[in-house]
Amino acid sequence: MELLDGRALANELTHAQQTAVKTLKVQGVTPKLVVIMVGDDPASAIYTQSKQKRATKIGMASELKRLSAETTEAELLALVKTLNDDRTVDGILVQLPLPKQINEDHVIQAIDAKKDVDGFSPVNIGQLWLNQPGLVACTPNGIMRLLAAHKIDVAGKNVVIVGRSNIVGRPLAALMLNANATVTIAHSRTANLKDLTKTADILVAAIGKPHFFGIDAVKEGAVVIDVGINRLEDGSVTGDVDFEALQTHVSAMTPVPRGVGPMTITMLMEQTIEIAKERVKRG
Amino acid sequence: MELLDGRALANELTHAQQTAVKTLKVQGVTPKLVVIMVGDDPASAIYTQSKQKRATKIGMASELKRLSAETTEAELLALVKTLNDDRTVDGILVQLPLPKQINEDHVIQAIDAKKDVDGFSPVNIGQLWLNQPGLVACTPNGIMRLLAAHKIDVAGKNVVIVGRSNIVGRPLAALMLNANATVTIAHSRTANLKDLTKTADILVAAIGKPHFFGIDAVKEGAVVIDVGINRLEDGSVTGDVDFEALQTHVSAMTPVPRGVGPMTITMLMEQTIEIAKERVKRG
Repeated sequence: MELLDGRALANELTHAQQTAVKTLKVQGVTPKLVVIMVGDDPASAIYTQSKQKRATKIGMASELKRLSAETTEAELLALVKTLNDDRTVDGILVQLPLPKQINEDHVIQAIDAKKDVDGFSPVNIGQLWLNQPGLVACTPNGIMRLLAAHKIDVAGKNVVIVGRSNIVGRPLAALMLNANATVTIAHSRTANLKDLTKTADILVAAIGKPHFFGIDAVKEGAVVIDVGINRLEDGSVTGDVDFEALQTHVSAMTPVPRGVGPMTITMLMEQTIEIAKERVKRG
Repeated sequence: MELLDGRALANELTHAQQTAVKTLKVQGVTPKLVVIMVGDDPASAIYTQSKQKRATKIGMASELKRLSAETTEAELLALVKTLNDDRTVDGILVQLPLPKQINEDHVIQAIDAKKDVDGFSPVNIGQLWLNQPGLVACTPNGIMRLLAAHKIDVAGKNVVIVGRSNIVGRPLAALMLNANATVTIAHSRTANLKDLTKTADILVAAIGKPHFFGIDAVKEGAVVIDVGINRLEDGSVTGDVDFEALQTHVSAMTPVPRGVGPMTITMLMEQTIEIAKERVKRG
């Protein structure tokens, strides 16, 4: 079995990004990512921090705007507008979830689509489904990069994606379809789920159930991408896939941790750098 | 077998639309659709004419803007802008294809998303995939209405859509997924296509190959939606499905013609009326 080692690829890409940022700086542009966090959700604090750290590591400018949990929607929208208009800002990311008094859709729609590094805005999602250039959600983007790095061609393959979230399943379906895969999107309402996943040449598991997919659910020789991040009682983290059981059964598989996870943040940096490159072109 | 008679349902809905338009007129709003046609493609002329005729039939205001084949992109964009700003215009539709000197994407993106009755703009496609309210492509919309009218619930069903166009396959996948179906999108690059379609509880054929799907490709008792419109040498029109062969094999099926076709234009009218209703609310 080929291990689809996301951490190794992420490290490689991070080095390339450091070089790219240096080049951009010579050209007078420092890529800049602004992360907005509202309130003090502990998980969100960890995520925003690790984004900050990574940006700093590759030499990018990075700013964390922490707003109080009482922030109004109007205040947040005003901040987004300021950042939209600030030409030194390349990427804007609003950490979700937001407090209840703020409508997340309104905020995401307010981000300039060209700075929407999460790829969550309707315009970017529409462009993705139209197979037009645009910003793409980072986890699906990272999965495609990981497959490409391991020369796993998805064209003509049966890809079954289990999970239909806006941040993983749906955008990944678009990327896979654009890459000529035959794509099935399954979810909690799917009948006979394991019979279906057993038909997959490439199985993507994103349902949040530890060790759900074992030998009974996976075709021999399949490629398995595990997007699940489940914390067990003993504190360890595991995926949706029974890695141990499948090791001698599949042809390639991502581990959890160190599989898809490290790719997500790496794609976030890459998109921010790409936007900064456009800034150089515009002069 | 239950015949999914699109013409019968379209007629029913057309009557309801006539009533809705009368009510709107009493409220001081006449729903208005503007169709733009550039050049003189004969097929486009027929399509735009039939939209005009239908709009007139239900009492809507309707205007056809015919521009010469030499129209520049800038001229067309200027016209679109004028229509965007005209508050008496509810729906704007640009008949495709456009002459080569005009970028279709630019034009579609220029249409105010709230007047984009074809549902082709990135914003509307994004909202569709986000399961947010918006305007939806008319053929997929018509298919969902036809199924609903026949009380065919798609939730939990295996839906296989063959064809991945921006106007049928892709948006229909979103609608089906939002309605809790398990959705597979197949296409010209799909391996073992007929084995796959044979697993479908609901099969949607949109590939433009006359009589391609017969008993060997369809599960017994399946529901079959035929989006194909193929003109045979003798001048007759037929679908992608072998209707004769499947008649005693499936549980429900659309004919061609008189199946999906009549629903498309009916959904176009319905969306225009819905936009006009918003105009009444805004006062």
